[in-house]
Amino acid sequence: MKNVVSVGLLGLGTVGCGVAHIIKDHQEELQHQTGCAIHIKKALVQHLEKERDVQLDPSKLTLHAEEVLFDPEIDVIVEVMGGIEQTRQYVLDALRHKKHVVTANKDLIALHGAELLQAAQDNGCDLYYEASVAGGIPIIRSLVEGLASDRIVKIMGIVNGTTNYILTKMSKEGATYEDALREAQELGYAEADPSADVEGWDAARKMAILSTLGFLTNVELDDVSVQGISQVTAEDIAYCSKLGYTMKLIGIAQRDKGRIEVSVQPALLPHDHPLAAVSNEYNAVYVYGESVGETMFYGPGAGQLPTATAVVSDLVTVVKHMRLGVSGRSMVAPLYDKQLKKDEEIFSKYFLRLHVKDKTGAFATITSLFSEHGVSLERILQLPLKEAGLAEVVIMTHQTNKKAFDDVCRALAKLDVIQAIKSRYRVEGEL
Amino acid sequence: MKNVVSVGLLGLGTVGCGVAHIIKDHQEELQHQTGCAIHIKKALVQHLEKERDVQLDPSKLTLHAEEVLFDPEIDVIVEVMGGIEQTRQYVLDALRHKKHVVTANKDLIALHGAELLQAAQDNGCDLYYEASVAGGIPIIRSLVEGLASDRIVKIMGIVNGTTNYILTKMSKEGATYEDALREAQELGYAEADPSADVEGWDAARKMAILSTLGFLTNVELDDVSVQGISQVTAEDIAYCSKLGYTMKLIGIAQRDKGRIEVSVQPALLPHDHPLAAVSNEYNAVYVYGESVGETMFYGPGAGQLPTATAVVSDLVTVVKHMRLGVSGRSMVAPLYDKQLKKDEEIFSKYFLRLHVKDKTGAFATITSLFSEHGVSLERILQLPLKEAGLAEVVIMTHQTNKKAFDDVCRALAKLDVIQAIKSRYRVEGEL
Repeated sequence: MKNVVSVGLLGLGTVGCGVAHIIKDHQEELQHQTGCAIHIKKALVQHLEKERDVQLDPSKLTLHAEEVLFDPEIDVIVEVMGGIEQTRQYVLDALRHKKHVVTANKDLIALHGAELLQAAQDNGCDLYYEASVAGGIPIIRSLVEGLASDRIVKIMGIVNGTTNYILTKMSKEGATYEDALREAQELGYAEADPSADVEGWDAARKMAILSTLGFLTNVELDDVSVQGISQVTAEDIAYCSKLGYTMKLIGIAQRDKGRIEVSVQPALLPHDHPLAAVSNEYNAVYVYGESVGETMFYGPGAGQLPTATAVVSDLVTVVKHMRLGVSGRSMVAPLYDKQLKKDEEIFSKYFLRLHVKDKTGAFATITSLFSEHGVSLERILQLPLKEAGLAEVVIMTHQTNKKAFDDVCRALAKLDVIQAIKSRYRVEGEL
Repeated sequence: MKNVVSVGLLGLGTVGCGVAHIIKDHQEELQHQTGCAIHIKKALVQHLEKERDVQLDPSKLTLHAEEVLFDPEIDVIVEVMGGIEQTRQYVLDALRHKKHVVTANKDLIALHGAELLQAAQDNGCDLYYEASVAGGIPIIRSLVEGLASDRIVKIMGIVNGTTNYILTKMSKEGATYEDALREAQELGYAEADPSADVEGWDAARKMAILSTLGFLTNVELDDVSVQGISQVTAEDIAYCSKLGYTMKLIGIAQRDKGRIEVSVQPALLPHDHPLAAVSNEYNAVYVYGESVGETMFYGPGAGQLPTATAVVSDLVTVVKHMRLGVSGRSMVAPLYDKQLKKDEEIFSKYFLRLHVKDKTGAFATITSLFSEHGVSLERILQLPLKEAGLAEVVIMTHQTNKKAFDDVCRALAKLDVIQAIKSRYRVEGEL
């Protein structure tokens, strides 16, 4: 049995340095847990001379991927370089050379997870990716093992810290979207080009990963319906709050009788929902299991050390498996064929904000249109607007299906009395 | 390799029936995950004829423990009968007969965990006990594996549903302790004799288990300092709330430079602390890791199906280990010698409520006594009482050590101007 496990790093940026730091600083505990020493043998970098916040012997740095991937002494590859196509090739190469892989790369797993997991199994290797979803929260492990005996019915996640930070600022301080985004950028929570975060694509990738594991079926990125937060206004947030709700960018994955839906959208949650209290850049994943009921897992969604902790915890698992001789056997293969719900089968309440021309009978026209489509209303607020001749109407529907609500919105848009549909949001949970 | 794993149940009460129900109802998923069928072969019961909410062939029921423990075909014993001495003997017998054990019994693990885990290892068997702490929350797995690479600094837990229900009722509805307890008893959340819950002993057992795992040292029940909630009054709760805090029965386990403290007590948490929002009978465990920072795990702390889910998830792990041939190797042996903090090393803020005789100079006498002991004050409220000649004084200290605060309290009790020390609580976290 090996007494030293050699690790090759692909990437030595923020997370890579965090991994190197934890491996060095926690060596005693890691040895205690795994029964052997863990050391970094090589790290692929882009610049040999760059200043880094971790001490690693310069001889361990290389500009050539093959020196990491094909080194026969390296047992485990830790992929923290990001990117998709090049990285996919590196990971495949590593697996074919019988090296276990730990990755923090959600894009890679969301797009190529099935292929990579198959390659891992074919080569008797482990492939772990806890850090790819919700950084420091051990959510993948909890889904796959902790709730292994349950049938998971619903997963709701705040899985993007940038958008949660922005919406928290808007909710708690009345900030505009633009100001909150600028602040997030200044603090380093948002990229210069924030689209992947604010348009919901990052959250969609994570939800594809979580729903694949939770529902034992192969959910792909294209199966996720996505709406971002860039259209959310301070007015929307103020109305939500007035109605007793908090606005969050929520990934929702739901399963009924074998049929699933996965979506990401700004949605309204009752103030006392466990997810509503998740503020700033924090993440949380709410899991509803048929037997266990409500559970929630909360923690940092990103950051150097939280992400590195998840990577090194995976590394511990991989090393234990190596020593026990059980690598490559822990795969969760899909059990069910994927059956996506049609819009008619997706039920929720909705919030709708309209600008309505102040004409006699306008209100009756609108409400009878809802009734024609079989959508009943739970609450209506009508308020005068500063702009003469216009009123603001805020509507909360009862439970309805997505198709009916879309139809209503299309029909509303054609009404002469409607000046504009200002916003529409899904509403989750009961007040 | 076995195609069928046979389980013996010790006990077929609420949780036992839940386990039987899940094994039957989720057979397909369980087979998919473990690669083999799982069936219940025998169940030890107290009454053969009793009405139960699960269908189990009457021939599988037995009144004789040895028919379960010594059946050579039984691979795994699931202990859901409760109790301590008799149960300890059964579990030891099972392990000596090379049967793996899954238990939901916190009392057993808190008192005899070290001995039983040693016996498991000596016999090459698994012993798992996820359900013993916080029912449906996979917290043990998260501590041992999910945060395996981190150094855990602090664990705070709401790990007793009964007391959390009572304190929630008192906080949200202004109920008295007696009324809230009665309601909890009517709903079945509290026993007829509620002492194990309300005096904090149940929480203490769970904290001993969590801190043993989190700090890699052998924490015993006697190491936990325990105070219950039976002295908490509606007045205390009202003052907490006025100061911006929520009262919870909190288990606190903390480690500084290798020295630890473990305690259970009613304590004040800022309203926006993640644990403050955990209401009613729900449980949550807050874990602070050196690298990961703040995480929290939330869910049902008890109940038939949540507890049974945790038991069956452990069973899935045990069956996987059997099939992989790696049973009995996953033990977490203590790494560190136990070093308990002295009172001088335990720091927190405190809340103190006094009834003070309304005499000239009383206030000065009290505050100078604090200052003599080196305890500085963050906030003071003084209010007149209905009772003539008395004032109510509420004090919040700055961070101080437990010894200094205890000394102050002892000295206060001797002062002529103090009519009574009405209550004193630890305060956690910053507003």
